[in-house]
Amino acid sequence: MRIGVLGGTGPAGTAIAVRYGAVGVEVVVGSRSEERAVATVERLRQNWPGRDLALLPGTNKVAAGADIVVLATPWDGATTTARELAGELTGKIVVSMVNAMVQWGARLVPLFPPTGSVANAVARTLPMSRVAGAFHHLPAGLLLDLDQKLEADVMVFSDARSTTDEVIDLVNKVPGLRGIDVGGLNSAMAVEAMTAALLEVNRRYKAHASLRVTGIE
Amino acid sequence: MRIGVLGGTGPAGTAIAVRYGAVGVEVVVGSRSEERAVATVERLRQNWPGRDLALLPGTNKVAAGADIVVLATPWDGATTTARELAGELTGKIVVSMVNAMVQWGARLVPLFPPTGSVANAVARTLPMSRVAGAFHHLPAGLLLDLDQKLEADVMVFSDARSTTDEVIDLVNKVPGLRGIDVGGLNSAMAVEAMTAALLEVNRRYKAHASLRVTGIE
Repeated sequence: MRIGVLGGTGPAGTAIAVRYGAVGVEVVVGSRSEERAVATVERLRQNWPGRDLALLPGTNKVAAGADIVVLATPWDGATTTARELAGELTGKIVVSMVNAMVQWGARLVPLFPPTGSVANAVARTLPMSRVAGAFHHLPAGLLLDLDQKLEADVMVFSDARSTTDEVIDLVNKVPGLRGIDVGGLNSAMAVEAMTAALLEVNRRYKAHASLRVTGIE
Repeated sequence: MRIGVLGGTGPAGTAIAVRYGAVGVEVVVGSRSEERAVATVERLRQNWPGRDLALLPGTNKVAAGADIVVLATPWDGATTTARELAGELTGKIVVSMVNAMVQWGARLVPLFPPTGSVANAVARTLPMSRVAGAFHHLPAGLLLDLDQKLEADVMVFSDARSTTDEVIDLVNKVPGLRGIDVGGLNSAMAVEAMTAALLEVNRRYKAHASLRVTGIE
């Protein structure tokens, strides 16, 4: 299986790519600029010389040709990128990890597009794809450091049980991550907005906060 | 210290009241109908004959006279109740635990008032009060059963650090609960919407899910 990451050169996309590459899942690190993708993969290899990272640089279009595609662009580019690649993404699982937020004074404030959430906007843009959401709450700094042990739950949502289950399987491939089904695309607002709240937690407690869902088995 | 619970005869309000009453914090169980409040307190005493529950029945107006007030009405009555009691609530901490949601088919979907969140709507209604939010994610069934040990984090938010800290102190009085500062009123959307997502988790996993914030000491 090959994963494609759209916007794979940003912190969030890079973090996801390196974690999958480190466990031998092939990842296409996609970017609007192929040169930037090449430079990012080069840098990751230099950072982790002992690891055989299964990373390939490519354009977003090449990344969209993978078996499962993670959308990790800046929030204001998510639907544009999705629209441009709608053909390549037809029939595929597209996992949005995009959060929209803005800094107001010292505070981080979640933003919602008029259609409710970034994931919902992407789903409307890609009616022929299987749109899901995951990976929103993982601190990029922690993910990027492969020496750090992860222990976090990843909230996964989509409007189809089969899509959610495939994304949970994908999440569970990274040691220390556990995918949790948190419902349909209507749960996207909660999950996306929670990222800003967790950054507020980090600010208050000088921490790298993650979420655990307790009480399920 | 005395807590007043507005809408204290509903499941959420009753659950909070019984947990504080059980640890000796005096709680006025408020209701629009004093008779209903009397019946609720009577029922709670009968359910827990061995416990000396520190509960008093009263109208919402009497409950609003307490030192700290918890708003636990149905979501569509929250601002109306707040507006009617604005005088009593002046200068006081008002803790909204209200979530707005609706069932669409099998799914629970979060709802937001046009001002962004229930807590924000309450804060606009009560400009002279210290409005915070807390207790949104606790499963009422678990809280109501005093034999059940709790182990959950309670996300607390307000626009003033001193208010948040007082509410965290209040949360921490209940054994097994830990209050976490998740930022300002702008975090209300995340916290309120997450309740519907957690109910989706419960549906999928046949569980009583709670949240833990990990990574902070």
